[in-house]
Amino acid sequence: MARQYCPPNPAVACVLAAADGTVLGAGHTQATGQAHAEVMALRDAAARGHDVRGATAHVTLEPCSHYGRTPPCCDALVAAGIKRVVVTILDPNPLVAGQGVARLRAAGIEVDVLPPGSAAAQAARELNLGFFSRMLRRTPWVRLKAAASLDGITALDNGASQWITAAPARADGHAWRARACAILTGVGTILADDPALDARLAGTPRAPRLVIVDSELRTPPHAAALVVAPGRPVLVVAARAEPARRRALEDRGVTVIELPGDDGRVDLAALLRELAAREINEVHVEAGATLNGALLRAALVDELLLYTAPKLLGDGAGIACGIFAAGPLRDVAAALPLQFNSATLVGNDLRVLARVAGRDRF
Amino acid sequence: MARQYCPPNPAVACVLAAADGTVLGAGHTQATGQAHAEVMALRDAAARGHDVRGATAHVTLEPCSHYGRTPPCCDALVAAGIKRVVVTILDPNPLVAGQGVARLRAAGIEVDVLPPGSAAAQAARELNLGFFSRMLRRTPWVRLKAAASLDGITALDNGASQWITAAPARADGHAWRARACAILTGVGTILADDPALDARLAGTPRAPRLVIVDSELRTPPHAAALVVAPGRPVLVVAARAEPARRRALEDRGVTVIELPGDDGRVDLAALLRELAAREINEVHVEAGATLNGALLRAALVDELLLYTAPKLLGDGAGIACGIFAAGPLRDVAAALPLQFNSATLVGNDLRVLARVAGRDRF
Repeated sequence: MARQYCPPNPAVACVLAAADGTVLGAGHTQATGQAHAEVMALRDAAARGHDVRGATAHVTLEPCSHYGRTPPCCDALVAAGIKRVVVTILDPNPLVAGQGVARLRAAGIEVDVLPPGSAAAQAARELNLGFFSRMLRRTPWVRLKAAASLDGITALDNGASQWITAAPARADGHAWRARACAILTGVGTILADDPALDARLAGTPRAPRLVIVDSELRTPPHAAALVVAPGRPVLVVAARAEPARRRALEDRGVTVIELPGDDGRVDLAALLRELAAREINEVHVEAGATLNGALLRAALVDELLLYTAPKLLGDGAGIACGIFAAGPLRDVAAALPLQFNSATLVGNDLRVLARVAGRDRF
Repeated sequence: MARQYCPPNPAVACVLAAADGTVLGAGHTQATGQAHAEVMALRDAAARGHDVRGATAHVTLEPCSHYGRTPPCCDALVAAGIKRVVVTILDPNPLVAGQGVARLRAAGIEVDVLPPGSAAAQAARELNLGFFSRMLRRTPWVRLKAAASLDGITALDNGASQWITAAPARADGHAWRARACAILTGVGTILADDPALDARLAGTPRAPRLVIVDSELRTPPHAAALVVAPGRPVLVVAARAEPARRRALEDRGVTVIELPGDDGRVDLAALLRELAAREINEVHVEAGATLNGALLRAALVDELLLYTAPKLLGDGAGIACGIFAAGPLRDVAAALPLQFNSATLVGNDLRVLARVAGRDRF
């Protein structure tokens, strides 16, 4: 759950243990601006009446050493009399990496950092891959979600597409939306389906930001996605923003920015950099074949989340196929290479996670 | 392995146990005309120097009571002095079911049959689903195999399709071919790809029969599939067999039959009944979209074996999509309903087994 409400902060866990291994307290990151894992663990130990002086703190990410939205966690650990800190992985931010460790050591605390190649360190990185991506690549981790029948069909030739997958898969999809910092879609999807694109089925308080790629600013000011979640930040990205349309959207509380590319459409790479600058770690794309294809051809997609329904919908001209519009290609060997991470039944549907080969090596 | 070389006999295992549970001997069905599981287990016990008098025989299918290609196994168990037989599931053949049990009991042997709904009984049925299908439905179990990219593409618009999946998945596909009694394809595939359609990568001695659906008898007498496996039975099924073409194929050792349907093409339901009559338990279909679609629309497919490659090949007009040509449909709810049985990584490819809902309830 922490993954769903702590962004843009990374999800971190802290366990305080006595010398004999007894757990004295545990905690994880709260919502932005609220306590980090270390402070939550110290509060937990206090609430349980445990004395943490001389204890060891195990923390899945290097404790922060700076004043951000909260005071430095290092100082809280020092003040509490913690004797030793075991850090699973260093903070990826090149500007701060190692400073938390240095600050703890300067205060006389023994600090161990697990080897970067260890399974635990890799798992800690994976847990916050979007945060690592933003810090190290200056661009978010981009996940593209789609749903299709077993034969790769996303809609019938009469346009019918509801519902290819069943309720459990749709709820699972909302959980993936909920852990993202932003949901990215195209104006085509807004105009065709007028979806809410929220994470209501996940039941988490934080509403992921909505980003609409809309080269000519055609998003209707009363689109459902702008209306259903009051107070939810919405960013509409145009290649050129006609002033009256811009005003109509801004009147609805929408932020409009212009990021024109060479082709007169939105510059998608610049958009991702802009999103990283706005503290977006993880982008969840739910769009049509046009935007999906543009992101894929620009090599901006990191992984695919595909729900496959146990149905055959096949054939007929005009049917929507080639789910992601990644081609056309002349040679099978030229296909975008992926690596399957998992294939899991969700209700009666199959959820496949595939990563673009090598995209997670940064 | 027994599944690959014992067809059309069912794969059966037999374990002989002493009163204290000690295993005295074990065996499984051999190739057609050779010993059944019970005889193999008795021989194994003898070879180990064990006395099986008073022992219990556990056998995964009711012992046979008739003279077929071998003498009745019941008689072998009686002659060996077996005291008790535990049968996992009765023989599905309505003409013989229960007769093995009756014959054993008449000889004074205590017989227990596991409840039909038990997990062991269901697993024993599943192990020989093709045999159960042939006995109970008088038609084989039909598995349709296909390979596609993650976006459901089977070939590029220039026809390129080799290789969408990698070597481990292709070897795995041969193992599935090898356990079938027959491999079914269409003349279109023979003419387009001239494939061997054998199970050479599985390394088993028994070559599954080849069945070619060929309405107008266009199969070239020197097609690779007719040539590569000497002695392998090949059946070409036409709607009408022009005499000279028939003779040319028969000269190659091919059996030609005519099964015309109302539409001037091969009557596929009649073909499956014919294959059951020829002791075909399990049919492995590897064909193009035309035959796949015809089988699906005629509701003759029981399960799908789909290899999904970690590639995106997508879009472009003329691309082969809708893998199975099951449509066209007007409504998503009208799609052929499947149930996923498994999704397993085979090398870097994903193997999905999906069963047509309800098809295994017979």
